[in-house]
Amino acid sequence: MKELLGSPGTWSGLMLRLGQCAFAGASIGVMVSALGFANYTAFCYLIASMGLQGLWSFGLACLDAYALKLKKDLHNPILVSLFVVGDWVTAILSFAAACSSGGVVVLFERDVHFCKLPWFSCGKYELSTALAFIAWSLIATSSLVMFWLLAAL
Amino acid sequence: MKELLGSPGTWSGLMLRLGQCAFAGASIGVMVSALGFANYTAFCYLIASMGLQGLWSFGLACLDAYALKLKKDLHNPILVSLFVVGDWVTAILSFAAACSSGGVVVLFERDVHFCKLPWFSCGKYELSTALAFIAWSLIATSSLVMFWLLAAL
Repeated sequence: MKELLGSPGTWSGLMLRLGQCAFAGASIGVMVSALGFANYTAFCYLIASMGLQGLWSFGLACLDAYALKLKKDLHNPILVSLFVVGDWVTAILSFAAACSSGGVVVLFERDVHFCKLPWFSCGKYELSTALAFIAWSLIATSSLVMFWLLAAL
Repeated sequence: MKELLGSPGTWSGLMLRLGQCAFAGASIGVMVSALGFANYTAFCYLIASMGLQGLWSFGLACLDAYALKLKKDLHNPILVSLFVVGDWVTAILSFAAACSSGGVVVLFERDVHFCKLPWFSCGKYELSTALAFIAWSLIATSSLVMFWLLAAL
């Protein structure tokens, strides 16, 4: 059971969680540094959702590190069920946030051509959305691994 | 096995598929009837994605009707795997389309106040996005049922 890549209480699981934290944090950082992001609901929602994901992933990363240090086994049904629910909820929220920001960025870029305005920080909005999609892909991997573990328990 | 609500080749499955078709079709219809939707990439993507989902759901509805008429059993691993892949792909695309349209609609409504302009068909954009979310929730139900069936096979 321990061999499944990304399962809780393993080095790969810890790396996956730290990656989620890092990309979620980077997405927030880039968005916050963009001028005027607070005028757009989708970008505020992106920050909220990435914040939630960062906290959740950080919590699980700490748990993984603790389990690795004390050589504890985290594969019990109650814990894994909890991880599955949390991972799926944060994954769906992150995906919704990334997609809605993506919709708004595409609108700015292709439809209303705001990105040609020199003071409009389009590049940062795009980068932040791309980072959010990467964070989502990592949390989606975790969700699938957790679901698989729950099915196998 | 046959008792699982919404599984392929049952009346509940057929109803679920027809519901997906109906809501996807309604979403497309409302969006097409809105003035100037083609200026916005997110709304064009919504139509494409709902079109794909409508076709997929219609195909499976026909298969369900055929199985019901001839009393065939559709629970074989290859067919169910195919349904799982198709359902998950269309579900993810539909959710992405609905969320990006939602992001753009919220931008119009709350951030730039375009909805106050009398010639702007904001209500139709909103209705179409809401119908897309309903269609997505039905396809998500199907996806989960299919995944469950595959795990149980």
